[in-house]
Amino acid sequence: MRSTRAFRPSAALKTDGMNAPAGPSHAFSLPEREGVYRAIHERRDMRHFSGGSVADDLLQRLLSAAHHAPSVGFMQPWRFIRVRSQSMREGVHALVEQERVLTAQALGEREDEFMKLKVQGVIDAAEVLVVALPPGREAHVFGRRTLPEMDLASSACAIQNLWLAARAEGLVMGWLSIFCPLQLARLLQMPEGSRPIAILCLGPVQAFYDQPMLQAEKWASRAALSDMVFEDRWGQNAQPVSNA
Amino acid sequence: MRSTRAFRPSAALKTDGMNAPAGPSHAFSLPEREGVYRAIHERRDMRHFSGGSVADDLLQRLLSAAHHAPSVGFMQPWRFIRVRSQSMREGVHALVEQERVLTAQALGEREDEFMKLKVQGVIDAAEVLVVALPPGREAHVFGRRTLPEMDLASSACAIQNLWLAARAEGLVMGWLSIFCPLQLARLLQMPEGSRPIAILCLGPVQAFYDQPMLQAEKWASRAALSDMVFEDRWGQNAQPVSNA
Repeated sequence: MRSTRAFRPSAALKTDGMNAPAGPSHAFSLPEREGVYRAIHERRDMRHFSGGSVADDLLQRLLSAAHHAPSVGFMQPWRFIRVRSQSMREGVHALVEQERVLTAQALGEREDEFMKLKVQGVIDAAEVLVVALPPGREAHVFGRRTLPEMDLASSACAIQNLWLAARAEGLVMGWLSIFCPLQLARLLQMPEGSRPIAILCLGPVQAFYDQPMLQAEKWASRAALSDMVFEDRWGQNAQPVSNA
Repeated sequence: MRSTRAFRPSAALKTDGMNAPAGPSHAFSLPEREGVYRAIHERRDMRHFSGGSVADDLLQRLLSAAHHAPSVGFMQPWRFIRVRSQSMREGVHALVEQERVLTAQALGEREDEFMKLKVQGVIDAAEVLVVALPPGREAHVFGRRTLPEMDLASSACAIQNLWLAARAEGLVMGWLSIFCPLQLARLLQMPEGSRPIAILCLGPVQAFYDQPMLQAEKWASRAALSDMVFEDRWGQNAQPVSNA
């Protein structure tokens, strides 16, 4: 079994022909598949940005990618607020700074360690987008009767689409969830029943992190894939999954 | 501005050079970018499967793609239970069928319309994976003090990674959220504090839907992107976003 850590798309994909499924092949070309796996494996949650700008047509492509996410009952529960004015950007930044201190305090013994991390790019990223769930979601029952939180799951898929497309386009992104949703909703004049779930910082950068920042900073490390996968019941190891 | 409906990756991407940002270009090659956008735009939530199988190394690649999703505080809150035994598969199927009827009743006037939709592939998909949040999530405060649901958001990103990689590999997937999470947790012997969020049906198929099934069945239609994007405050149209 192949290592999950040193990922080499070409090496992995070129063996595929030996295991091709029967029936019509809907697989993409090798470079297209490599693009998908590169985006997945080289995407980073970035906290450093180098200003610049994002062209309108590029931003439109990214937002369209987000809008083509799956959604429960096709409810499309995502809204994007592009933060453009300097005063609004500063207001968003202030909310992040405020919550950053409160989170650090809540972390207790890891407070100092947390405060050393750079956790935002609201001021220096080319673009800031707030993603929110819209009001009126209770009308959507399809796939949500027992799991009402599926609207959030759909919107997270939209953000992941945007993130992967941005990576392919050479842009970095960071997803901040360090803010008070009530205060951010008030700042952006969001209607009752809506809920902000992300502050996305997006733009060009000089260099991508070569590993997750929180791993580089020794905050946490990647778990073994084999510990994430069970078979038929919780806790039972799945045989074909390995980290060897 | 470009239509969001008739998406042609090459046409969209080839204009990019005119708007290339200053600084180092981290953009992927054109075919790699096309792969990313194809996966995003051609991914479908599928309810039809044609049996078959998924090779072990391919399944491993897909699970590894999922495991490389972003996660809040790098907590990696995803677990995958591969449903292999026939009896377990039938147990999962029975829970979906039970909730399908309850959802239909809850939908009221759309009950009959809902019952006509094929909403599952638990029996005929090559693979069934249940995705769950692990217990002990309350220990993770980073990025979750005010938004505790970010663990679900991270796991949704993992599922979206898996979905896009599957599309690139020519496999289809469906995400079912029509089940009682308590009963499914009991069936799979999940520990207290864990929560199943998805039943994923995965495998080969004869043909992909050319549009979302719920759109083809006139359950719902895709919203205009311009209605999803605001500027600086809720409800204020963003100028550069269009559906023309």
